[in-house]
Amino acid sequence: MNNSLRVGIAGLGTVGASLVRVLNEKSGLLISQCGRPITVTSVSARDKSRDRGVDISGFQWFDKAEELAVSADVDVYVELIGGDEGPARDSVLAALKAGKHVVTANKALLAKHGLELARAAEASGVVLNFEAAVAGGIPIVKTMRESISGNDTNRLYGIMNGTANYILTRMERDEISFEECLADAQRLGYAEADPTFDIEGNDTAHKLAILTSIAFGTEVAVDEIYLEGISNISLGDIQAARDLGYRIKLLGVAQKTDTGIEQRVHPTMVPLTSVIAQIDGVTNAVAVEADIVGSLLMSGPGAGGDATASAVMGDLADIAKSRPGHQQAPVFGRSVADLKTYQRAEIESHAGGYFVRMVVHDKPGAFAAIATDFAENNISLESIVQRDPAHTVASNAKTVIIITHETTESAIRKAIKSITEEGYLVSTPQVIRIEKAE
Amino acid sequence: MNNSLRVGIAGLGTVGASLVRVLNEKSGLLISQCGRPITVTSVSARDKSRDRGVDISGFQWFDKAEELAVSADVDVYVELIGGDEGPARDSVLAALKAGKHVVTANKALLAKHGLELARAAEASGVVLNFEAAVAGGIPIVKTMRESISGNDTNRLYGIMNGTANYILTRMERDEISFEECLADAQRLGYAEADPTFDIEGNDTAHKLAILTSIAFGTEVAVDEIYLEGISNISLGDIQAARDLGYRIKLLGVAQKTDTGIEQRVHPTMVPLTSVIAQIDGVTNAVAVEADIVGSLLMSGPGAGGDATASAVMGDLADIAKSRPGHQQAPVFGRSVADLKTYQRAEIESHAGGYFVRMVVHDKPGAFAAIATDFAENNISLESIVQRDPAHTVASNAKTVIIITHETTESAIRKAIKSITEEGYLVSTPQVIRIEKAE
Repeated sequence: MNNSLRVGIAGLGTVGASLVRVLNEKSGLLISQCGRPITVTSVSARDKSRDRGVDISGFQWFDKAEELAVSADVDVYVELIGGDEGPARDSVLAALKAGKHVVTANKALLAKHGLELARAAEASGVVLNFEAAVAGGIPIVKTMRESISGNDTNRLYGIMNGTANYILTRMERDEISFEECLADAQRLGYAEADPTFDIEGNDTAHKLAILTSIAFGTEVAVDEIYLEGISNISLGDIQAARDLGYRIKLLGVAQKTDTGIEQRVHPTMVPLTSVIAQIDGVTNAVAVEADIVGSLLMSGPGAGGDATASAVMGDLADIAKSRPGHQQAPVFGRSVADLKTYQRAEIESHAGGYFVRMVVHDKPGAFAAIATDFAENNISLESIVQRDPAHTVASNAKTVIIITHETTESAIRKAIKSITEEGYLVSTPQVIRIEKAE
Repeated sequence: MNNSLRVGIAGLGTVGASLVRVLNEKSGLLISQCGRPITVTSVSARDKSRDRGVDISGFQWFDKAEELAVSADVDVYVELIGGDEGPARDSVLAALKAGKHVVTANKALLAKHGLELARAAEASGVVLNFEAAVAGGIPIVKTMRESISGNDTNRLYGIMNGTANYILTRMERDEISFEECLADAQRLGYAEADPTFDIEGNDTAHKLAILTSIAFGTEVAVDEIYLEGISNISLGDIQAARDLGYRIKLLGVAQKTDTGIEQRVHPTMVPLTSVIAQIDGVTNAVAVEADIVGSLLMSGPGAGGDATASAVMGDLADIAKSRPGHQQAPVFGRSVADLKTYQRAEIESHAGGYFVRMVVHDKPGAFAAIATDFAENNISLESIVQRDPAHTVASNAKTVIIITHETTESAIRKAIKSITEEGYLVSTPQVIRIEKAE
């Protein structure tokens, strides 16, 4: 049909191949839903001859994504190359400037160059959709950009990295160490050969930066995010957390405070009975707290070829339903001119409860000194637990676990500095922030 | 501004008053998000003089909703009157026929007359949005109608009635009877004076009928829904469920089967560790299983003035972002002509696990006879528990609880008929379906 929405796809990895397949399989359904066909006309990838399990012989082939992006046969350019520079960035910018709509799953690109891309989309009056860039198949971008229009967000938090969540879930369930679990995840293909990006929180930070911009109407600021990974979480931490009614999750959290917006990615204790604590394995979940609607939570597959392709397909369907000249929601929920400068709240001013696990020399006065150091920093304690010997590192040492009531990061740091300087600690203490969650 | 989206609101109850207030408070944010103002021009309600906590003196007043609906000063008609006949239906139809977009929170109207309204909207090329009609502030309609375009849904299930969920949550937590709990809910305003509609599942059925149509591309068929309420759920059932690793929730479930589509609302056992089991109190949650994206789950406030107003505001923002002549998603996800006739799968053919609680005369052979009746109907048992005397009704009776592996409704009914006819039962047995849930 000549009213087709003509799609060019660059990048034919797992997601790209899935997308080609589902757009073909679901062509009838999509016509029924969108009122016109969505038709792949062109593709580009590194290697034309590679077998991807889908027939690409009917599409025009481009060696260079930048050329496909501006092709006259393309209404929408789908970027699935990845990376925040090079062909991905160049081709997306070229497409936007040429007046093509763009759909991308590229979180790094949006986190680093989101503003530039949003400006280019606005200048051309085209759509830039990126549902697949955050939490895979979960429609969190659409929810925040469209469904809760008119709401001011107070906080958002979520499990946005399946690899890290898989490792934490397996550590607890199978009572194995972080290292053992990571090796297993790598064997099963849930973790990359170099897992740094997933387990140290960088991937979560990219997604958080994008959602923060939409939630608070601020310019994307990925470099301002406080980052801690999960590689130093021990089985002992996980078990102690459970005994105290918590579970450890790698969360990305963005929160409005009096001094600015907190953006932080770190291992977090959430109540065992909360919904987010039940999110197992590679599943993702994002919760939003906004002033009119209240609390929303969404969970679903955070990755995978089909789930990601589904999000891209939804973005394409939105464009197919719209008619030429119609501009949908602005890229980050409002026009670039209306985005405020990001004002960072320093991590030292973070307020919340804390879990502190210390291995302490078993000598008289240690307990009293520790309690005094917390008291002198106005930190009130919810509970103190001395763990059984199985969890201590040596016969003359004891593990002491403290859960605090709400305090500040700077108070906790001061207390721990004092305790450390007084020589009571066998090793560096473990400090994990507690997050309120439903 | 003269490019305002002009809104007329009929019905100024809790939701209507909230909507007037938030559209005013958030006017600046909405301009930024939509590119133009959303302006209330006209209102209609039963009593002009009633104090609603919002100033309506600046709006044109209409005594009749049907007149407001077709007023020249209105681009979008917001129907918050309620009821599936009378002014609600008449005014919505009038608005659609007059070429006005319509936003409504009226589930009963859509469940009963959805097809007629969809036809009228299509004929005029206008939008009919109804996010607030299903699960309050949760963007489940948008997710199903837009985000998962191109997916075929296999199953959807959810907690869509806050009153029923509040009662079940309180019964378990406070160990009180259904009657005591209902009285409390009525005192707190969570249940109506006549609670039938909520606790017998009719309200859930309305919402389920709407989602079923979008999920499976079928004509709305609310009268075809199998219905069981929660009024005969005892504290004993709830405690037995928990002991066996389950929690009882009132679910609406729609599922594709070989013989048609099951639509059923009934008390349901879900695994204690599932996400849906953690949905407490008046919160709602809906899960969707579709072929490309996999499983999604969303939870949030299912009712309340502000949460419902937020959903209406999101629907209005979508219309404000679109430009005249642009048609958004079809009402039920595809054009009325493409909706298939609903083919009902009979409840007798339902396949799943069952919980059966029987009070049995304590005489020799009872246990063996019961086991034989199940076996003769090819029902294999996952567990049989004989509860302690505190749960039996008389000294010469015993409570026997059976959890079956997957079987069919008709097999269960035959087995129970045999057991009943053989005279082993003291009272009518309790049968609760088990639903797989993540």
